[in-house]
Amino acid sequence: MKKISLLGATGSIGTQTLDLLRLHPEEFQVVALSFGKNLSLGVGIIKEFKPKIVSVLTKDDKEKLEGMISSDTKIVYGEQGLVEVAVHHESSILVNAVIGSVGLIPTLEAINQGKTIALANKETLVTAGHLVMSLAKEKNVEILPVDSEHSAIFQSMVGQDIARVKRLILTASGGSFRDRSREELNGVTVGQALSHPNWSMGAKITIDSATMMNKGLEVIEARWLFDIPYKNIEVILHKESIIHSMVEYDDTSVIAQLGSPDMRVPIQYALTFPKRLPLPISKSLNLWEIGSLNFQKIDLERFRCLRFAYEAGTAGGTFPTVLNAANEVAVDAFLNGKITFLQIEDLIDQSLEQHESISNPDLETIKAVDMEARRYVTSLLT
Amino acid sequence: MKKISLLGATGSIGTQTLDLLRLHPEEFQVVALSFGKNLSLGVGIIKEFKPKIVSVLTKDDKEKLEGMISSDTKIVYGEQGLVEVAVHHESSILVNAVIGSVGLIPTLEAINQGKTIALANKETLVTAGHLVMSLAKEKNVEILPVDSEHSAIFQSMVGQDIARVKRLILTASGGSFRDRSREELNGVTVGQALSHPNWSMGAKITIDSATMMNKGLEVIEARWLFDIPYKNIEVILHKESIIHSMVEYDDTSVIAQLGSPDMRVPIQYALTFPKRLPLPISKSLNLWEIGSLNFQKIDLERFRCLRFAYEAGTAGGTFPTVLNAANEVAVDAFLNGKITFLQIEDLIDQSLEQHESISNPDLETIKAVDMEARRYVTSLLT
Repeated sequence: MKKISLLGATGSIGTQTLDLLRLHPEEFQVVALSFGKNLSLGVGIIKEFKPKIVSVLTKDDKEKLEGMISSDTKIVYGEQGLVEVAVHHESSILVNAVIGSVGLIPTLEAINQGKTIALANKETLVTAGHLVMSLAKEKNVEILPVDSEHSAIFQSMVGQDIARVKRLILTASGGSFRDRSREELNGVTVGQALSHPNWSMGAKITIDSATMMNKGLEVIEARWLFDIPYKNIEVILHKESIIHSMVEYDDTSVIAQLGSPDMRVPIQYALTFPKRLPLPISKSLNLWEIGSLNFQKIDLERFRCLRFAYEAGTAGGTFPTVLNAANEVAVDAFLNGKITFLQIEDLIDQSLEQHESISNPDLETIKAVDMEARRYVTSLLT
Repeated sequence: MKKISLLGATGSIGTQTLDLLRLHPEEFQVVALSFGKNLSLGVGIIKEFKPKIVSVLTKDDKEKLEGMISSDTKIVYGEQGLVEVAVHHESSILVNAVIGSVGLIPTLEAINQGKTIALANKETLVTAGHLVMSLAKEKNVEILPVDSEHSAIFQSMVGQDIARVKRLILTASGGSFRDRSREELNGVTVGQALSHPNWSMGAKITIDSATMMNKGLEVIEARWLFDIPYKNIEVILHKESIIHSMVEYDDTSVIAQLGSPDMRVPIQYALTFPKRLPLPISKSLNLWEIGSLNFQKIDLERFRCLRFAYEAGTAGGTFPTVLNAANEVAVDAFLNGKITFLQIEDLIDQSLEQHESISNPDLETIKAVDMEARRYVTSLLT
């Protein structure tokens, strides 16, 4: 029985993680979890899974919740609450599925406690990859990717001669607007952007997918997870999202992981690694039904956010923190109808342009730069 | 320095193996080798690689050769010669790249001596898979596949939870006649059959590729190499030969090995396993250049030889031996202009029809059945 701390239980990754726990009740138990605004869904989860501790956003939420559930579950809240969930003494693995840089501190604390990390929160590595990975190495803790692309790369490196990795090839579906030119992106609506062709995901990541910032963040994440330089990380358009990513070795052999687009596969792999478990609720891949898999070179002028990410990642220092913070604020503004789709890129571009990077930043510096970048983008919105 | 015995040095796999030895002279040395009719190429190989022992076909060839090379190389001949090469005391690995069932005894003897086997000779497993694999298990010897498909499967299982393998998916290019209907196969010539769209290989295997018997033999080989029942081995048409084969796991995750069609990649992997070495002479895969990978369901009525192989494999006993022997004689007859392309299938069909299988055959039984099947097909030719 593997005991789990789950941050972000009511989100897309969180609820799918709980689906897997329902499927394998003899294998997994969630002992601690957190959720955000969706209290009603959260109450249902608490009643079903009976965690020892639950963290919510605010003291108000905590008090409201305490009136709704049995006293067997301790309720905590805020940033400190997330940390309490992450480091719960009974859990051996933290599934970090919160959105945004709020996932960083709980991850670091869980690594400090020697917990395995199943990481769906990509901002953690984007803003502080150097800190997370060096601490994980020091504590001999495994960071297991949950993103489908990084899970694919991870699965394509298991048991392989990783000293001979030549190139990581991340596939990109192209998102909701992959067949539109830049001109055709003028005036696209939030609803259109939220309609992803292949994957069912949360709102933030679906927009990031449409701007290709999601792939940009993944490139930075891959650089840290697999310790591969940016020049050896490629992105290729693959609209079917069947090959989830690939690894090329020095002998030109390429190992790839494929499957129907279903996040439960990489989530479960992170939970069961190095073993696997059956997943009868997921659809078996049938390539002759699909017929053909298509690939295109990616145009970094069409997808400017991906270019920004490569540039910010390569420049290093606090640039990736700014990239991520500016993107979070800009996407939020787009989702709330305050800016157009293309303005997301412009705001990120301006944020990076005006930023003076600090190299090898510590946690305090990252926090300060993150806040400053958010403030800067917010000031541009008014 | 890994020391190698190489059976079939002048053939397609043999010469490509020697290319790799030229590329990595500090890693590999061939200490013993055999070749067949191509004495002039053989002499060049002996002069370049200076093996300790060489086996040729006949006593005549042995005497001829002794006049052409220095006395540092011992010359032997015939079946016993192949065994002497296979078990040479200095070698740690046998690369078995001879064609036909003549590869079986040397393989068994090398396993008995604890040598790792890099197996390109698929008839060894087709006719006597149960004997080879049980002996390998008993002697704790690794059988490393050299065929691109089996190497792909092997590479897709390294480090994985093999208890969770659900399905092997072998890809088939479809061979020289993949786009022709059965009617259009009437009257095709040897030259047309020898023109494979993707792979440069020897004559026998190229014809087997056109009839799809090659894939059939691979299915039987896969059953033994990976201990997977036939019902869990699928063949899918994939005309580009880029995905070399795949493994599906119980969680629906599929691991695949891809690359430009180049036999030197799987040969080298068998030599370097579990490590890899650079292979700068091979072309790096570029999927956006290729554009699309296509897949089709395979029609077992169109490709009757594949159906025969599934049936012979599933029925077991000496049926696979008959399948293989009948095919060898029939392909030879086709290459020598004695029968038409479609008669290859008919001869195999008749051979299987009239055969009464013996279950769990020992080596003597296999030899006798093999000879009897060859005699039977030959009798049909006159």
